[in-house]
Amino acid sequence: MPVSAAASAREILVRLHDVMAARTAAQAKLNSVVNIIGEALDSEVCSIYLLREGVLELFATRGLAEAAVHVTKLAMGEGLVGTIAANVETLNLDEAASHPDFAYRPETGEEKFHSFAGVPVIRRERAVGVLAVQHADPRRYADVEIEALQTVAMVLSELIANAGLIDQATTDATRPQSTASVRIEGFRLVDGMAAGAAVFHQPRVVIEHTVAEDVEAERHRVYAAFDKMRDQIDRMASQAEFGVGGEHDEVLATYKMFAYDEGWARRINEAIDSGLTAEAAIERVQQRTRMRMREIDDPLLRDRMHDLEDLSNRLLRMVSGQLGTAAQMGLRQDSILIARNLGPAELLEYDRRRLKGVVLEEGSLTAHVTIVARAMGVPVLGRVRDVRRLIAEGDRLLLDVTGEAVIVRPNLAMEEAFDAKFARGQKRRAAFAALKNVPPVTKDGTRITLMVNAGLRDDVAALDLTGADGIGLFRTEFQFLVSATLPQRERQQRLYRDVLDAAGDRPVVFRTVDIGGDKALPYLDHDDEHLEENPAMGWRALRLALEREGLMKAQARALLEAAAGRTLNVMFPMVSEPWEFDQARALFEAQRKWIAARGRKLPHEVRYGAMLEVPALAEVLDLLLPKLQFLSIGTNDLTQFLFAADRAHPKLALRYDWLSPSILRFVRRVVEPARAAAVPVAVCGEMGGRPLEAMALLGLGIDRLSITPAAVGPVKAMIRSLDLAAFRAHLNACLQHPPTNLRASLEDWATAHGVEIT
Amino acid sequence: MPVSAAASAREILVRLHDVMAARTAAQAKLNSVVNIIGEALDSEVCSIYLLREGVLELFATRGLAEAAVHVTKLAMGEGLVGTIAANVETLNLDEAASHPDFAYRPETGEEKFHSFAGVPVIRRERAVGVLAVQHADPRRYADVEIEALQTVAMVLSELIANAGLIDQATTDATRPQSTASVRIEGFRLVDGMAAGAAVFHQPRVVIEHTVAEDVEAERHRVYAAFDKMRDQIDRMASQAEFGVGGEHDEVLATYKMFAYDEGWARRINEAIDSGLTAEAAIERVQQRTRMRMREIDDPLLRDRMHDLEDLSNRLLRMVSGQLGTAAQMGLRQDSILIARNLGPAELLEYDRRRLKGVVLEEGSLTAHVTIVARAMGVPVLGRVRDVRRLIAEGDRLLLDVTGEAVIVRPNLAMEEAFDAKFARGQKRRAAFAALKNVPPVTKDGTRITLMVNAGLRDDVAALDLTGADGIGLFRTEFQFLVSATLPQRERQQRLYRDVLDAAGDRPVVFRTVDIGGDKALPYLDHDDEHLEENPAMGWRALRLALEREGLMKAQARALLEAAAGRTLNVMFPMVSEPWEFDQARALFEAQRKWIAARGRKLPHEVRYGAMLEVPALAEVLDLLLPKLQFLSIGTNDLTQFLFAADRAHPKLALRYDWLSPSILRFVRRVVEPARAAAVPVAVCGEMGGRPLEAMALLGLGIDRLSITPAAVGPVKAMIRSLDLAAFRAHLNACLQHPPTNLRASLEDWATAHGVEIT
Repeated sequence: MPVSAAASAREILVRLHDVMAARTAAQAKLNSVVNIIGEALDSEVCSIYLLREGVLELFATRGLAEAAVHVTKLAMGEGLVGTIAANVETLNLDEAASHPDFAYRPETGEEKFHSFAGVPVIRRERAVGVLAVQHADPRRYADVEIEALQTVAMVLSELIANAGLIDQATTDATRPQSTASVRIEGFRLVDGMAAGAAVFHQPRVVIEHTVAEDVEAERHRVYAAFDKMRDQIDRMASQAEFGVGGEHDEVLATYKMFAYDEGWARRINEAIDSGLTAEAAIERVQQRTRMRMREIDDPLLRDRMHDLEDLSNRLLRMVSGQLGTAAQMGLRQDSILIARNLGPAELLEYDRRRLKGVVLEEGSLTAHVTIVARAMGVPVLGRVRDVRRLIAEGDRLLLDVTGEAVIVRPNLAMEEAFDAKFARGQKRRAAFAALKNVPPVTKDGTRITLMVNAGLRDDVAALDLTGADGIGLFRTEFQFLVSATLPQRERQQRLYRDVLDAAGDRPVVFRTVDIGGDKALPYLDHDDEHLEENPAMGWRALRLALEREGLMKAQARALLEAAAGRTLNVMFPMVSEPWEFDQARALFEAQRKWIAARGRKLPHEVRYGAMLEVPALAEVLDLLLPKLQFLSIGTNDLTQFLFAADRAHPKLALRYDWLSPSILRFVRRVVEPARAAAVPVAVCGEMGGRPLEAMALLGLGIDRLSITPAAVGPVKAMIRSLDLAAFRAHLNACLQHPPTNLRASLEDWATAHGVEIT
Repeated sequence: MPVSAAASAREILVRLHDVMAARTAAQAKLNSVVNIIGEALDSEVCSIYLLREGVLELFATRGLAEAAVHVTKLAMGEGLVGTIAANVETLNLDEAASHPDFAYRPETGEEKFHSFAGVPVIRRERAVGVLAVQHADPRRYADVEIEALQTVAMVLSELIANAGLIDQATTDATRPQSTASVRIEGFRLVDGMAAGAAVFHQPRVVIEHTVAEDVEAERHRVYAAFDKMRDQIDRMASQAEFGVGGEHDEVLATYKMFAYDEGWARRINEAIDSGLTAEAAIERVQQRTRMRMREIDDPLLRDRMHDLEDLSNRLLRMVSGQLGTAAQMGLRQDSILIARNLGPAELLEYDRRRLKGVVLEEGSLTAHVTIVARAMGVPVLGRVRDVRRLIAEGDRLLLDVTGEAVIVRPNLAMEEAFDAKFARGQKRRAAFAALKNVPPVTKDGTRITLMVNAGLRDDVAALDLTGADGIGLFRTEFQFLVSATLPQRERQQRLYRDVLDAAGDRPVVFRTVDIGGDKALPYLDHDDEHLEENPAMGWRALRLALEREGLMKAQARALLEAAAGRTLNVMFPMVSEPWEFDQARALFEAQRKWIAARGRKLPHEVRYGAMLEVPALAEVLDLLLPKLQFLSIGTNDLTQFLFAADRAHPKLALRYDWLSPSILRFVRRVVEPARAAAVPVAVCGEMGGRPLEAMALLGLGIDRLSITPAAVGPVKAMIRSLDLAAFRAHLNACLQHPPTNLRASLEDWATAHGVEIT
């Protein structure tokens, strides 16, 4: 009985199409289906089991005892049928009874049938039923027959969902794993909490029809979609791809390979030959690939499969015309966005008021989207697995990045626990907000300068919201990160002027661009000969800027002209040796002369500063300090170099404490000579934003902090409750003879002395 | 005249096969060929141009004027034929005269033919001739006709080389780019110089026959080879792949994808259908892919193409049975090995006496093969482009890693320059060897302890060769790097005992394994969730060892038992905080108790030391020093963290000088308290192996150096010519008020005071 798979499947599909179109009752349709399939495959038995209330129930059969219909029920995982559904896998056996999972059901009268083949009926990647054929003759079914069964199962899934055979509620109820609450772990990218509805950045395509009316028309649709998709991929690869999407090079290379893979296109065509619509053919091939890949447990290929899934979804979107991202369709109130990855520009397309959080399947601490989301104050959980499988569009999500998890479809207890945690945070925030107009002065009268870090135009609003003293670190690279092309000098100048205008009397310290290394920009042509093995210690920041003089000159002009008539504070990142500061300063001075020569207005003062984040610089402060107007310690980078520990590495982030004697002694070694040289020293970086750490910094003699706006309240509360002189004495003693646990010791002191450090 | 490509090519091939087998003169054969092709393609003109003495000469024609044969000559790049040969590309034009490169040759009488198509005849990836067809009718040739021409060109290339049409010398002479000297630049991986003959690690397969005798047999051969290749790739991916080859994960993933790519297999089958042998079919498909890829200038795809080339070569080797690597065939005297990449185990398979150097297309400073080659003293040049195209098996090579280049087929002047440079080095080495038995004592009587770094069993021989005082750094991870599986404790113990035996009275300092980070081992299951963005600052060395206690316990046992009855010096890498040292020491002490409890013999003394390579540790020396028996400054890692500058990055390696005030002051900050605490401090790392840098270190109070064996002579010469007390005073003054160029200043002092620093 060998048949051509395409011919056989097509013949069945044509007949199924008529059944589905007929205005008969659901049960009658199913009865017709088993007869059609049994006949077409010349199989003695054909049965359909559907998942109802969590068990697989025999809904229709040809060949088994009629009395068994709606009587025989199998749990998920029970018997061959249950195994097929539970594992979403195909079985093809010449002797059913010899399979370890075989469970005999006497009411069916199936003992005389030796051979057995069954395929899952799949909906949203899970089994909602099983289609099985049996035969007295002990022989395995041919591959073409199995293929035909799988194709039919696909159509059955449409019939089940659309022909009213099982109502939607039931369909949902048949997905127990999906309606139960699930907690999925992830990796903390941008801290915060949020509740809302799941929105997929690229919505999943719903397949309306599986059986083709006109095979040639379907073929044409697939061809057109392939062309479009290839164009799109080519464009992404050739353009500044990061402006378009979050994909990085490796993923694009794989996309490209698959997009041009003839095997893939051919298999889709074969599925169309068998009578499926373009959408169903794409999904059919993807299902088959998914099943095959599940057998090959290879982490290398798993990633590639992920790429193929993406591409398959892309093709589905093209063929169905369901093209837009969620951003284009507009967000509902309180949405949590789900994506494999995002570009920074894509993130900015969403309405900031409605977007409460982001869940990414990939993502890293240094990705542009993470940097931008942090600046926007949108919590991001990264490296979340299986989102497509576990989360459905519209599902309620509780995103708790602090707890490194997202809860899907929470139950009441989960909601309450989340609300309580969230409310505690809210309450604290309200209390801190009340401190807005009081100055950050210690109990013993030392005025601390509390400034905020910023990077986007909107961030300047934080000055008024927090009552901060100024912007201690304006990260100019943000504008570069969110642009698809190099920002023109005029655009840079406009941003800087807007920021200065908004800041008014309050100082703004502009840091020149820190790009390169882990903040690579696609429109700067990279030296791809030397892909950096350790980008944090790479060709970045001032190193790159001094080489690409054009870039830095444009920025110098933009800053000098934007600050005309005002004070310009400019700071250079990653200064490693004094000569680098000299060169950068000289470059700015040359631009100042150039502007002056043209009679244009200049800043009335230009103050130059350096970031201290490279440990070597601390050894030559005697040479550097006389050149500086101010110094700023960048604790994020500094501590990772001091400990040779990447802060993006989750294990290492916890291993070395900011409150270690090493770091505090190092900071003291910087503060003392700077004070002697009358050069103000600030600390910018996460360390200064944590009350206990900030307290330690004040104890070391730091009196300027530039921190994230959300930290201003808590740090100010700490400052106002601190007797600095007393603490300084205690800290000095601690650093002289460090206790085993310095953090605990400082915490104890703070508690004993009523310092607010929570 | 549309024809089936396969049928048409096959018909031609059958006839060509007869021509080639016939015992006629070369010219007669070519005349037959043009007639066969012209007839088969129903083309009015068919001509063959062959490259002779650098120009393309018309050798045979059907349709053009007979008088033009051996008269019409075109330079490479001249006219359409020259363009085809120069670019190794196919042209297909409906109106030849309208092409910008068209050059009319009146003697041929070709003005009446409008359409023109030509394909290059390729040998070793370059054109050795052109096969052209012309037609009066102004229409482009069909794709199937072009395909047929390309297949025929492939057979022609065999005919030209094998049928005695052009002798081998002429064939070589027709490859001007290949016989001229070429200098190819690369990246310095292991310094050194060597001259020798090029040997490809995976020799290129020479295709003997292009026309199949039996198509089915060829098809069978290809199938079998595909199966074998897929097996091999699967095995590589599943096993500890690095023991097998130098391929890393990404390459393997791509291999796997191509190996199972149906499109590739199908195209090869189609080429076999057209009448080619299995080898020729594989090569034919590869040629076509190469040509197509050249049009797509995409760096992402270029890498993938490289993978496909590799795989194609692998398939060729399987199908032809030419399987062995050059190692299995045995090296000739003075060989320079060429490979895309190598695993450390593969490198060790070569005869160390005959292998003079290695040229890699890939490679990085931190790759295992580089580390092992450095230990073996074999110079390695990495990231060398186009080796397959520019270098032929057996070509003479001058490898000058110091000059970051390899010279292929040098001319006399190049040989002389190389010899002179090499001789200078030899002479200096001989002079240094003479210092073997004199002690490293400064002019003013300070005895310096000069030790060597080692990592392989054979390295211990360096002790006797150099007269060093001991092994100041034995890198135990080498045994782990060169094994395909985790070395058993017994094997570790045997190595350590052998080393101690060979060292005799001289001390050996064993450093516990520094793996993880950039020295990942495939047999340690990795946490692939967290691929490290900055592996140098990652989860490595002691951090990893303290987590994987089993690994460290086994090593502790092996070291303690190997040193029974002797002194064991053990040193922990990457200590960042004192508690890490405490934990590691406690682990060793527990093993010591365990051995003692069983009544086994123990070392009579165990001395514990720490590496200082993490800057933070310098801040807490007061806490660490009381615990230590010795300290060793690892300058390689230390300086990269101090400057936040990856030493593998070529630009950064030059940017910051070891002789900077920062580094010297830092070292002084370590030496002074250590001296006060009576803890000996050594320096191990490249810095100590350079005479000027070593002089500076002595000036800072360092009196123990552990350096690469080759540096012992030069450093000893420096020591013996140095008045240390005088220099110390000078250096202190320099560090008090650093001159602009500290290196120049120290150089001047050394020159003025007769210190040997070259």
